[in-house]
Amino acid sequence: MALAITEWDSASADEREAALRRPALTADGAIRSRVAEIIRQVETEGDSALRQLTASLDKVELQDFRVGKREFAAATRQLTPKQHAAIELSIANVRSFHVAQLPRPLSVETMPGVSCERVSHPIDAVGLYVPAGTAPLPSAAIMLAVPAAIAGCPEKVLCTPPRNDGTADAAVLVAAQRAGIDSIYKIGGAQAIAAMAFGTASVPKTCKIFGPGNAWVTEAKTQVSAHLRGAAIDMPAGPSELLVIADANADAEFVAADLLSQAEHGTDSQVILLTDCKALARRVADEVGRQLCKLSRHEIAAAAILASRVLVVRALEDAVAISNRYAPEHLILHVDQPRDVLSDIRNAGSVFLGPWSPESAGDYCSGTNHVLPTYGHARAYSGLSVDQFMRQMTIQELSPEGLRNIGAAVIELAAMEGLDAHASAVSKRLDRMASQQ
Amino acid sequence: MALAITEWDSASADEREAALRRPALTADGAIRSRVAEIIRQVETEGDSALRQLTASLDKVELQDFRVGKREFAAATRQLTPKQHAAIELSIANVRSFHVAQLPRPLSVETMPGVSCERVSHPIDAVGLYVPAGTAPLPSAAIMLAVPAAIAGCPEKVLCTPPRNDGTADAAVLVAAQRAGIDSIYKIGGAQAIAAMAFGTASVPKTCKIFGPGNAWVTEAKTQVSAHLRGAAIDMPAGPSELLVIADANADAEFVAADLLSQAEHGTDSQVILLTDCKALARRVADEVGRQLCKLSRHEIAAAAILASRVLVVRALEDAVAISNRYAPEHLILHVDQPRDVLSDIRNAGSVFLGPWSPESAGDYCSGTNHVLPTYGHARAYSGLSVDQFMRQMTIQELSPEGLRNIGAAVIELAAMEGLDAHASAVSKRLDRMASQQ
Repeated sequence: MALAITEWDSASADEREAALRRPALTADGAIRSRVAEIIRQVETEGDSALRQLTASLDKVELQDFRVGKREFAAATRQLTPKQHAAIELSIANVRSFHVAQLPRPLSVETMPGVSCERVSHPIDAVGLYVPAGTAPLPSAAIMLAVPAAIAGCPEKVLCTPPRNDGTADAAVLVAAQRAGIDSIYKIGGAQAIAAMAFGTASVPKTCKIFGPGNAWVTEAKTQVSAHLRGAAIDMPAGPSELLVIADANADAEFVAADLLSQAEHGTDSQVILLTDCKALARRVADEVGRQLCKLSRHEIAAAAILASRVLVVRALEDAVAISNRYAPEHLILHVDQPRDVLSDIRNAGSVFLGPWSPESAGDYCSGTNHVLPTYGHARAYSGLSVDQFMRQMTIQELSPEGLRNIGAAVIELAAMEGLDAHASAVSKRLDRMASQQ
Repeated sequence: MALAITEWDSASADEREAALRRPALTADGAIRSRVAEIIRQVETEGDSALRQLTASLDKVELQDFRVGKREFAAATRQLTPKQHAAIELSIANVRSFHVAQLPRPLSVETMPGVSCERVSHPIDAVGLYVPAGTAPLPSAAIMLAVPAAIAGCPEKVLCTPPRNDGTADAAVLVAAQRAGIDSIYKIGGAQAIAAMAFGTASVPKTCKIFGPGNAWVTEAKTQVSAHLRGAAIDMPAGPSELLVIADANADAEFVAADLLSQAEHGTDSQVILLTDCKALARRVADEVGRQLCKLSRHEIAAAAILASRVLVVRALEDAVAISNRYAPEHLILHVDQPRDVLSDIRNAGSVFLGPWSPESAGDYCSGTNHVLPTYGHARAYSGLSVDQFMRQMTIQELSPEGLRNIGAAVIELAAMEGLDAHASAVSKRLDRMASQQ
């Protein structure tokens, strides 16, 4: 397996654009209309639609979707002590980083007698989706449940697809429960998103839905977020991405391992290496070939690696400019002075500094959230954090003095906008003060 | 004009639901397809499409959309000293409250050798839309421009519709320029949103679009936010809303003035009064009748007031529960102890405490932002603030010790998820450390 190496400086503008082009996320009309139909069905028929869809799509007949005490207990017994310990360590680190994100209330007296404040409240009801497509994802349960619990959302609902035997993955159940969720429903795909957006007799309606998923889940999230009675969503989703910036001293074996850890996610995973050292690029390409054949998911990884790009640039500044233009989900700065490079990085979901910070550390255990903006959305969106499970509300309290201080300006601006009643709400109060003096 | 007064306790469940029902925002198919056509046209034909659409929709031929020095100077001369002073005071107060919102960087060592950080960067390019439908809105320019400037967004583009004579409203120009925007384009409606989402030869492409607007603007924002090459948006929009909770000691004249200040926005404005005192409800109804006829926009206000609701409840707690269920954009607590009531308020965009805090104070000058979630979206969305003009990026840096501390857990979790290469990126590093000791 030889990675194709491109010299950036000798590439044409078209070649450069092609090198940074993401796969077209074909908005498949068939998926779109089928998802709309599933949503309509769940909204109007509730639980009976969920039972029917689960039977036809997940191939299992379920009467009760909710995971009960017995299934939680069985899941707990099923994991090894090492697996429990890994889940606990991940939860502890994610909790410790996310607790620090709790917003502080704000209070400013903008003028004498004009007090402006901002407070945050947890969202009343949130829905979390944990996929289980090619593999169960206990780490996703942790990344969604921990900030929801820290925010203090009173109602937290988690949906995850049932397996053929009618159970949910044990690791997902244990991770979610240990992270503070006990309202778990075995529902998958678009029907799970519809259930959490509109509510059914058994699934509570939520105000905002979080979490990753396949094309069906993503399309369902988009549709319910545009629906008047639907729910808000965390962010748009796309295939996972890693961009590595490496210099001449980078460790080719580590770089190759990091590229492959991204490539194994899916055949559409985006993997890019930028380096100012052609020799390093060649060493990495060799290493990728060596390591690839040993992976259990080597077919998936090979497909993603075939589509990956290795770009040799003249200087690290060029690599930074290209990375900022691409806006990767994950960015590894595998260079001598990563903090120097970091200061110029603007568009990225999460950044990993130096040789001992592999991307998989952030996927599971460092403490940062692994739900991150893909597909260039890092230009306008942030990764998941506690504040996305809360809303900010502003408050103002004016004393008579405060209203006197801003009253004339309110009346003047209202007049410029032709809004008499806005002015009148102030002038009536100012008149009253004058008459009371 | 008599407001209909409903006793909450004697209302049926259906009547209660009807009382809190918002108008159906009919997603008009004709608007939707026309907006899609406008967007397609601007994306493919750029400036020539903008010229053509401006000629046909705004009835003015423009060669150059950008406001030049001469037009800014003329606008500055056109305003009176009082108007300038009102704009300056508004900007100063909004700035003082929004500067306090600048996010602080975060740094947590989740385990020895595992450093997790979070920093915020301004969004590279933002688009602001200031409507000028029934009236020009200099206050909207202030509410959008001030936080964009505080966030430090390098590129800030503002679009506002041209008037028939080809100029933009003077107050909007002065307000925007004083608040830190000098890149202003005279483009309105869906075509302005499309121009800022995709960019043209004259209008820079932006990453996120902010601001209020009519059904066309709202639909265009929804469409470009779902488009792969489009732009993110601030929040979904709906008609403006005010809910007042008043007790027996509330001032009926002030309450009526506040209700009318909301009603004059548009015939679809939502106005609700909740009180535990039927006598107060009657006094307010009388006052509304008296004040209404004196308003220049009394036809608009009368239509909105006709659809408004006055609900008499048994106790203030019931009013709070109803308000939390409705989730109003603006909430006035015109009661004896507003702070006591505030502690139970969860879902609202902005709250106004006591008799001297009319809603119009927040619209213009108190310092809070007036771009707020309507239509119940306060359940999941926040009003505009500085952080919405920024993105958060997380960073992790592990030392060899740090990786040793979490390595086993990463490998265990990767195994549970069937992701070998994730484990291998860590185990290769742990092996190296072992071999170097």
